[in-house]
Amino acid sequence: MEKTNMMVPLASDLPVKKETICIFGTGDFGRSLGYRLVQCGYSVVYGSRSPQVSGLIPQGATVVSHTDAAEMSDIIIIAVHRGHYSFLESLQEVLRGKVLVDVSNNLKINQFSDSNAEYLAHMMPNSKVVKAFNTVSAWSLQSGGLDANRQVFVCGDDNMSKEKVMEIVRSLGLTPLDKGSLLAAKEIENYPLQLFPMWKYPIYFSLGLSLFIFIYSVIRDVVYNRVEKNKDFAFFIVISIPNRICPVVALILLALVYLPGIFAAILQLYRGTKYSRFPDWLDQWMLCRKQLGLVALAYAFLHVLYTLVIPIRYYVRWKVNSYVLEQAFSNRTDPLSISGAWHSDAYVALGILGFFLFVLLGITSLPSVSNSVNWREFRFVQSYLGYLTLALCTAHTLGYGGKRFLNARTYPWFLPAVYIFSLIIPCIVLVMKFFLIFPCIDRPLTAIRQGWERKPKYISQSNNSEHPRETSAV
Amino acid sequence: MEKTNMMVPLASDLPVKKETICIFGTGDFGRSLGYRLVQCGYSVVYGSRSPQVSGLIPQGATVVSHTDAAEMSDIIIIAVHRGHYSFLESLQEVLRGKVLVDVSNNLKINQFSDSNAEYLAHMMPNSKVVKAFNTVSAWSLQSGGLDANRQVFVCGDDNMSKEKVMEIVRSLGLTPLDKGSLLAAKEIENYPLQLFPMWKYPIYFSLGLSLFIFIYSVIRDVVYNRVEKNKDFAFFIVISIPNRICPVVALILLALVYLPGIFAAILQLYRGTKYSRFPDWLDQWMLCRKQLGLVALAYAFLHVLYTLVIPIRYYVRWKVNSYVLEQAFSNRTDPLSISGAWHSDAYVALGILGFFLFVLLGITSLPSVSNSVNWREFRFVQSYLGYLTLALCTAHTLGYGGKRFLNARTYPWFLPAVYIFSLIIPCIVLVMKFFLIFPCIDRPLTAIRQGWERKPKYISQSNNSEHPRETSAV
Amino acid sequence: MEKTNMMVPLASDLPVKKETICIFGTGDFGRSLGYRLVQCGYSVVYGSRSPQVSGLIPQGATVVSHTDAAEMSDIIIIAVHRGHYSFLESLQEVLRGKVLVDVSNNLKINQFSDSNAEYLAHMMPNSKVVKAFNTVSAWSLQSGGLDANRQVFVCGDDNMSKEKVMEIVRSLGLTPLDKGSLLAAKEIENYPLQLFPMWKYPIYFSLGLSLFIFIYSVIRDVVYNRVEKNKDFAFFIVISIPNRICPVVALILLALVYLPGIFAAILQLYRGTKYSRFPDWLDQWMLCRKQLGLVALAYAFLHVLYTLVIPIRYYVRWKVNSYVLEQAFSNRTDPLSISGAWHSDAYVALGILGFFLFVLLGITSLPSVSNSVNWREFRFVQSYLGYLTLALCTAHTLGYGGKRFLNARTYPWFLPAVYIFSLIIPCIVLVMKFFLIFPCIDRPLTAIRQGWERKPKYISQSNNSEHPRETSAV
Repeated sequence: MEKTNMMVPLASDLPVKKETICIFGTGDFGRSLGYRLVQCGYSVVYGSRSPQVSGLIPQGATVVSHTDAAEMSDIIIIAVHRGHYSFLESLQEVLRGKVLVDVSNNLKINQFSDSNAEYLAHMMPNSKVVKAFNTVSAWSLQSGGLDANRQVFVCGDDNMSKEKVMEIVRSLGLTPLDKGSLLAAKEIENYPLQLFPMWKYPIYFSLGLSLFIFIYSVIRDVVYNRVEKNKDFAFFIVISIPNRICPVVALILLALVYLPGIFAAILQLYRGTKYSRFPDWLDQWMLCRKQLGLVALAYAFLHVLYTLVIPIRYYVRWKVNSYVLEQAFSNRTDPLSISGAWHSDAYVALGILGFFLFVLLGITSLPSVSNSVNWREFRFVQSYLGYLTLALCTAHTLGYGGKRFLNARTYPWFLPAVYIFSLIIPCIVLVMKFFLIFPCIDRPLTAIRQGWERKPKYISQSNNSEHPRETSAV
Repeated sequence: MEKTNMMVPLASDLPVKKETICIFGTGDFGRSLGYRLVQCGYSVVYGSRSPQVSGLIPQGATVVSHTDAAEMSDIIIIAVHRGHYSFLESLQEVLRGKVLVDVSNNLKINQFSDSNAEYLAHMMPNSKVVKAFNTVSAWSLQSGGLDANRQVFVCGDDNMSKEKVMEIVRSLGLTPLDKGSLLAAKEIENYPLQLFPMWKYPIYFSLGLSLFIFIYSVIRDVVYNRVEKNKDFAFFIVISIPNRICPVVALILLALVYLPGIFAAILQLYRGTKYSRFPDWLDQWMLCRKQLGLVALAYAFLHVLYTLVIPIRYYVRWKVNSYVLEQAFSNRTDPLSISGAWHSDAYVALGILGFFLFVLLGITSLPSVSNSVNWREFRFVQSYLGYLTLALCTAHTLGYGGKRFLNARTYPWFLPAVYIFSLIIPCIVLVMKFFLIFPCIDRPLTAIRQGWERKPKYISQSNNSEHPRETSAV
Repeated sequence: MEKTNMMVPLASDLPVKKETICIFGTGDFGRSLGYRLVQCGYSVVYGSRSPQVSGLIPQGATVVSHTDAAEMSDIIIIAVHRGHYSFLESLQEVLRGKVLVDVSNNLKINQFSDSNAEYLAHMMPNSKVVKAFNTVSAWSLQSGGLDANRQVFVCGDDNMSKEKVMEIVRSLGLTPLDKGSLLAAKEIENYPLQLFPMWKYPIYFSLGLSLFIFIYSVIRDVVYNRVEKNKDFAFFIVISIPNRICPVVALILLALVYLPGIFAAILQLYRGTKYSRFPDWLDQWMLCRKQLGLVALAYAFLHVLYTLVIPIRYYVRWKVNSYVLEQAFSNRTDPLSISGAWHSDAYVALGILGFFLFVLLGITSLPSVSNSVNWREFRFVQSYLGYLTLALCTAHTLGYGGKRFLNARTYPWFLPAVYIFSLIIPCIVLVMKFFLIFPCIDRPLTAIRQGWERKPKYISQSNNSEHPRETSAV
C-alpha cells in the first residue's frame, strides 16, 4: 500500500522529459499504458492506421502513422492482437534493430503452438523482441491499484533491449522480473490465464471426499435416527456433521502429503537408484503436496472453530441441562470418572498440539517465510515437524475414537463411524515411515539419495555429498 | 534473521581493500555509515570543516578538509542538512563529474517544494546526484538490526552512478530498490515520514463507529436496565457490549469494501465510458479498500474471541445454572425445541464459514502471497470469495437477529438492537450487486470496462481485450 | 507454486541452443546441475578424469578430459570437493581468464579458516571465481520443488563474471541474490549449514522454563492433593498444568523482549554516550528479540486454545454440574455476584485484547509485511503496540490472580501460584519504562541517541538529526 501511495508524486508535473516511446495500437491497453508513460515523464507517440482519430489518446501523446511513429523512437510497444501482427512486416526496414515490446495475451492456455512473442520475433528477425507487461491490467496501469499486478515478467534474447524495457517498467513503479530468454515467453503468456493450477486436484479431491462423508453421515445419523428411533436430528447437517467431515478430510489430506514421499522411497529402494524417473502420477502428486497440506490446514481450522462453539450451541446446552436435571430428579450425583477425565483431556490436548504444529507448518509455507529459511531449516520444519503433526493428529483421532467405543450406539445399521476410515491412510504412512527410519533401511536409502547406485557403472570421482538433499518427506 | 546473521562474517578482518568513499559531514548518520563502510572493506575519508577534530570517527577512517576528501574519491556521500548544502557550491570544480549521494531526510512531509536531492542536483549541475540511504537508520547501520530497514530506495538520472551506489548498498548487506529517475526523490524523502497513510481513514472511521455503538448500547442495555428494572448490568461494558460492537463494525466495514465498486459500476454505466475520471472521494475510497477489509477482519477476529469465551464467563455460567435450577425446583424439563436447534446451529455455522473465508481473504492480501498469484487468481479471491464472505456474514447477522426477534425485551425505549443498523449497508450492496450481474446490465458494463463507449469517437483498431481488467469488486 | 509451474515449459524441446557450459565433476550435484542446464537449452560438457565412463551423464551432455572440456567453454562449474581442487593447478593455463563457479559446501560451519571459494580464487589467481548454487539441492534442480531453494546466493570480485552466472541462474528459473564480493563466500557457505541460529537461545530458554514450571505445578497441585487430600488429580498434567505453563512463559518471554532495551537505555544514560559498545550478552540478547517475541506468541496461542476448550472438558463439565446439583439438593440458588461478574469479564477481556495485539505484532514481523512498512511505522508497531500488549497481558494476569486470591486454598505447602512468578519481570519492565518516559529522563536519552554526548569532544558540524533512530523498544 505504501507503494501505491509512493507512485502518486510521479504523477505530478515533471520538469525533464524522458525518451520517446512509440505505441502501436490505440486499444484500451495501449491507451492505458501510454497514459501511465506520459504520467511518468516519457513522451509517447502512437502509431495508428487512422492518425486523425485521436479522441481517446492521453493528452500529451500524439498519434501519427505507423511509419512516422516508429521513426520517432527506438522502443515500439506492440499493443495489438497477434492476429494483426501481419501489418508489421511492411515495416521491416523502419523497425530494423529496434526494440519491439510484445504485450499481448491469449484467450486460453496454449492457444497457439508458439508464443506470440516468438511468433513476432520470427516475423521480424531484424528487430529485438522483448515480452513484457502482459500480466498487468489496463486498470491497474491507470490507478496503480492491485498488488497482484506489481510484478512484470520480462523476457527476451537481447539483454540490452531487455534492460531498457526493465528500466521503463521500474520507472512506472512496477517490479520487473527477468525470466531469461524469449523461450520463457510461452510460460509468461500462459501465466495470467491460470487459475490456481496446482490447487485444482487437492481442492476437487477434498470436496469429493467431503461430499461422500456428508452423505454417509446423513444416512448414519439423521436417517437412522428418524427411521429406527423416530427422532428428528436433521439439524445435525448444520454443525455436527460438518464437524465430522472436517477432521476426517484434514487428517486424510495431511497423510496424503507424506504418502508420495513413502512411495518414492520404496521405489528408489526397489530400483536401487534415484536416476530413473518416477511415474508421472507420482511426480504430479509430489508437486502439489504443499497445496494438499494447506487445504488440510483449512479443514483443520474449520474443525477447531466447529468444536469450540460446541458449548454455545442450544442443542448441546439442552443436552447438558437435561442430563443435570435427570440426576437432580433421580436424586443422585454421578461421581467423577478419573479415567473419563484422563480420556477427554488427553485427546483434546493431542488435538491442540497437533493443530498448533499444523499452523506452524502453514506459516512456514508462506512465500516470504520459506524464502527466508535455508534448505536444512525448511526440511526440518516440513519433514520432522510435519510427521510429528501427523502423528499427533492421528493419536488425537484414535483417542477420540477410543472414547466413542465406550458408548453403545456406535454401529447403527453396522455402519462404522467415519473417523475410523480417516485412520487408515495416516496409520499406513506412519507405520511405513517407522520402518523407513530403521538403520538397515535408512542407510541404503540415504546412500541412494546421495547418488550411490546398487549396480554402479563407475566410481564417482567427486560425489559432492554435502549438498542438501531431498528426503522422503520434503 | 538469517540475513542479520549472514552479515557478521563481513565484519571480520578483510584482506583486500575496496575503493575509497568520501563522506561529507561527521554527524551521527555520517559516522554510522562510515563505520559500516569500513566494516565492509571500503576505505573511508571524511570531509570536515574542522579536520583536526576526529574524535568520533570510526577507526580506520581519516578526516581531512572537504576539498582534499573530495579529491580522494569518485563517490561523495553528503551527510549534511539541506540547510548546509550551500558550502558545496565552492566545491563545484573538485566535484565535477563525481557522484553525490544525497542521504538527507526532512522533518515533515513536503517540507520543501522540491526534494533535497533535486535541490542538490540543481545546485551542482556538473555532478551526478543519486538519492539513497535516507530510509536507513543510523542504528541499524551499526547493528544491522531491523527488517524494516533492509530496503534502500535509490534513484538518480545517471544510471552508471546509480549502479555504483546500488553496488555499495548491496555490499553493506542491504537491498537496493531502483525507483527510477531523480523525480522519485520526493516520494523517497516522504516515505520515512509517513505513518500508515492509507490506514488513517479506515481506522478513524471504525473507531468513531465503535464509539457511537458503544454509547448507544450503554444507554440501551445498561442505563435502561438500571432505570426501568433497577438491575445493575454495568459489567456488560466489558465483554457483552464490545461483542456487539465488533460484529457490527466488521460487517459495515466489509460492506464498505465493496460499495465503492458498485458506485463505480453505476457511474460507468451512466456515463457510458470508463475514460472520465471518478470523483476524488471515490478514488480515495477505492484505494483504501484493502485497509478497510483488514480492519474489518480485525474486528471479526475480536468478535470470534469474545464469542468463544462466552461459556467461560461467570455471568453466563450463572445464568445457565439458575435456568437449570429453576427447572429443577419447578420440577420440569423443558423439551428440546427442534426449531431452536436449527436456528442456533444455522447462524453459528454461517458465522464460522464467513469468518473462515474472511481469514482466507486476509491471508491472500499478505504482500508475499498476493505477489505470487496472478491477476485472475487475485480477482477470483478478492471479488468472488469476497462477495461470498459478505453474503455469509450478512446471513449470519440476519440469523442472529431472527433469534432475537423471538424474545420479548427487544425494544427497550423503542431502541432497536444495533445489529439492525449493521444490516442496512450490506443488504444494499448485495442487492445492487445482484442487479449488476443481470446479463442485461453486466454485458454493457463489461463492454465499457473493455474500452467500449456508448458514443464511440472511432472504431478501435485493436482492442487488446484479453488483458485482465478491473471488476467492480477488485 | 506458480513458479514451480512456470518452469515446466522451459523443459519442453528448445529450438535455439545457448552457450556451452563446462562442469568439472560428475558427482550427484554435477549431474543434476547438468541435467537442468541441458533442459534449459545450454550445451553441457563434463570434464572428468575418466571420460569413457559417461553412464550417468544427462543425455545431450558429453564427457571429455578436463583440458578439452575447459577449452570448450568460458564458464567452468567446479562440482568437486575442496579436497580435489589441487588438480586444477595443472590447468592454470587453459583456465586463464575464465569464470570458475564454486558450488561446494562444507560439512560443518567454519570447517576451514577461509571459504572454499576464496581458497579456489587464491589457488587460481588468473581465473575469475564466482560462488553460487551451494544453497540449491540436487533434488530441487531436477524437480524444481522447494520454495526454500529458489534463492541462489552469488558473490564474486569480478562483476562481469558474476553477471554471467546470475544470468544462468535466472534462466534455470531460480532467483539470484547478489551478495557482493568474494568476501561474502564464507557466509554463503555457512548459510545452508545453519539451523535457526537466532532461535536457539529463545527456544532452549522457554523449554527450560516450561519444564521448571511443570515440575513446580505437579508438586503443588498433583502431589499435594494426593498426599494431603488423597485426591487423584494426575490428569491435570494433560491440560490444566500446560495451561498454567503457557501463559506464564508467554508473559515472561514478552517481557524479556523489552528488558534489553531498558538495560541499553540505562547504560547509555549512565555512560552519557551511544558510542561505546554494549556488552556482548546485551548485543546477543537484542538481536534475538524478534525470536523471543514469536516464541512468546506461540505460547500465548497455545494458552488461548487450552483456555477455549475448558467448557468442553469432561472434568470441568462434571464440576459445573455437581455445583448445580449441590444447589439443587440444598434447595438454594446462589445469587449473581456483580463483583464476580465484573472480575471474570474484566480479566478475560484484558486477555483477549492482549492476545489480539500480540497477533498483530506477530503479523507485522512477517518478512513480507515488515519490508512493506517504513522505519517509523515498524517502530510504532513494535514499540508502542508492543508495550501496550505487555501492559494488557500483565493486567490480565494480575486480574486472574486477583480472582485467585479470593479463594482459600491458594498456598498449598506455602507454595505461591506460578502466575505470581510470571509477574515479576513484566512489572519491572513496565515500571522502568514508566520512569524512562519522564521528560527529565527522556530528553537526555533522546539527545544521546541522536549522537549528543555528555562530554562532547567537539561540536558536530551537521547532526543529520532527522534520520530514524533506535529507541529502547526497537
